[in-house]
Amino acid sequence: MDWPVTYTRKVRYSDTDAQGIVFNGNYATYFDDTVTDLFDAIGYEWTHVEVVLARMEIDFRSPARLGETLVTGARVERIGNTSFTVRLETWEQSSGRTVAEAKQIQVTVSGNDFEPVPVPDDLVAAIESCARSGREMTTRSR
Amino acid sequence: MDWPVTYTRKVRYSDTDAQGIVFNGNYATYFDDTVTDLFDAIGYEWTHVEVVLARMEIDFRSPARLGETLVTGARVERIGNTSFTVRLETWEQSSGRTVAEAKQIQVTVSGNDFEPVPVPDDLVAAIESCARSGREMTTRSR
Amino acid sequence: MDWPVTYTRKVRYSDTDAQGIVFNGNYATYFDDTVTDLFDAIGYEWTHVEVVLARMEIDFRSPARLGETLVTGARVERIGNTSFTVRLETWEQSSGRTVAEAKQIQVTVSGNDFEPVPVPDDLVAAIESCARSGREMTTRSR
Amino acid sequence: MDWPVTYTRKVRYSDTDAQGIVFNGNYATYFDDTVTDLFDAIGYEWTHVEVVLARMEIDFRSPARLGETLVTGARVERIGNTSFTVRLETWEQSSGRTVAEAKQIQVTVSGNDFEPVPVPDDLVAAIESCARSGREMTTRSR
Repeated sequence: MDWPVTYTRKVRYSDTDAQGIVFNGNYATYFDDTVTDLFDAIGYEWTHVEVVLARMEIDFRSPARLGETLVTGARVERIGNTSFTVRLETWEQSSGRTVAEAKQIQVTVSGNDFEPVPVPDDLVAAIESCARSGREMTTRSR
Repeated sequence: MDWPVTYTRKVRYSDTDAQGIVFNGNYATYFDDTVTDLFDAIGYEWTHVEVVLARMEIDFRSPARLGETLVTGARVERIGNTSFTVRLETWEQSSGRTVAEAKQIQVTVSGNDFEPVPVPDDLVAAIESCARSGREMTTRSR
Repeated sequence: MDWPVTYTRKVRYSDTDAQGIVFNGNYATYFDDTVTDLFDAIGYEWTHVEVVLARMEIDFRSPARLGETLVTGARVERIGNTSFTVRLETWEQSSGRTVAEAKQIQVTVSGNDFEPVPVPDDLVAAIESCARSGREMTTRSR
Repeated sequence: MDWPVTYTRKVRYSDTDAQGIVFNGNYATYFDDTVTDLFDAIGYEWTHVEVVLARMEIDFRSPARLGETLVTGARVERIGNTSFTVRLETWEQSSGRTVAEAKQIQVTVSGNDFEPVPVPDDLVAAIESCARSGREMTTRSR
């Protein structure tokens, strides 16, 4: 699949809990870290509109353990009227085993009153340009 | 609503991020902390079966800020064949404002091979007993 | 000992790591959470000066485990020229076992240029008043 | 300075707090993450002895902000009778600005009763070998 950005994290003690696996709450952090990188890659000037996380769905596919390396990919999957959907996946680097999958609904709001506003055309263009570069990057590098 | 357990957390710097609000990933931690208390309240001996978090859905309703106090309630909402659903809600203590709502799918698995197994009858009984005591507790205390 | 504020935290999965004990880095968070409460209790208006954490020393005395309840106390121990020292201790609630001890050097800085400034007289007075109320509270409640 | 291992972390929202800078408690996590890598690099079989963190001292030199990249280096500085000292430093990658410095006292204990034991000769040898490779690596790469 095409991921314009990926975030790599080796699992250390700080990621784990007393069950010996990555603490489930930490995946939300991996996803936010990756989405920050995605927004940087989109390279949009957030002057008029801001983005608010409205909803997140996470499917936990398999546990991850100390010393494994987790890679999380993020991309915009669908652009709606006043929101867009970010698709995320975390896999174990050496085996490719899927560890978690997620979906985020990001709502575009006015920087003044935080009311939902339509996704601006130039943001749509920036997202599409980022997706294309991800596709090309993926094609080149794998 | 009836919450057999509630978990109270005053928002401090460690909960917030550079946007000045509670970091979205921390809600997954509040939910896990509360569900740990819920499982303690259910008081089940997890000898034959264990529970694995398979899916979580979070709706972010309003941001929370430094100094606010967040209360998270958890209860089992529905018991399926090999899983049950935990309903969660976080609200601001003084205003009652809803901050986040969530749903977790917890799968019962065999302690031997971690394959899904039917929710045992005595676990169903323990969950229902806990739900009743929550209802009574709520009736008494509010 | 006299603690004007104490912060209580039941150890849950999110506090622990794969060694089955509270992750060492989390004590720094407990200390910050407690110091936030201490500064609230001091009740000072931080308009002209701000406070910057310059140094922290932590002695880890014994590990803490899932289900134990940790209490952290904080008090100002010594007021210097441009800084003051906060003394912290974490103990297990039911046994009183010392879990960690710490010391923080907090430097008073100008809100304009963040250069160190003498601890203002009214901050000294507020700290001393808070310490006295802690002593009285302790005397009354134990 | 010679660092056999370095750990690189770009500062994202999850690292920061409402003051807009990296939350002080997170440095303890960066240090633990780096020391885990250091112990991996030392490559010792922890069969007879284990290591327990007994004391940590942190000096906070300058705040770090969203988007900066922090590098943390770790090395064993001094080997005592039943303990050794790990020296740590965190700096901002592009400017080289020192952000935090720290020292950890790690005590070697018996895996049976967790009582302090002398640092084994083969652990001393592994630490010294790791330090040499760090020095050579540094010489080559900078």
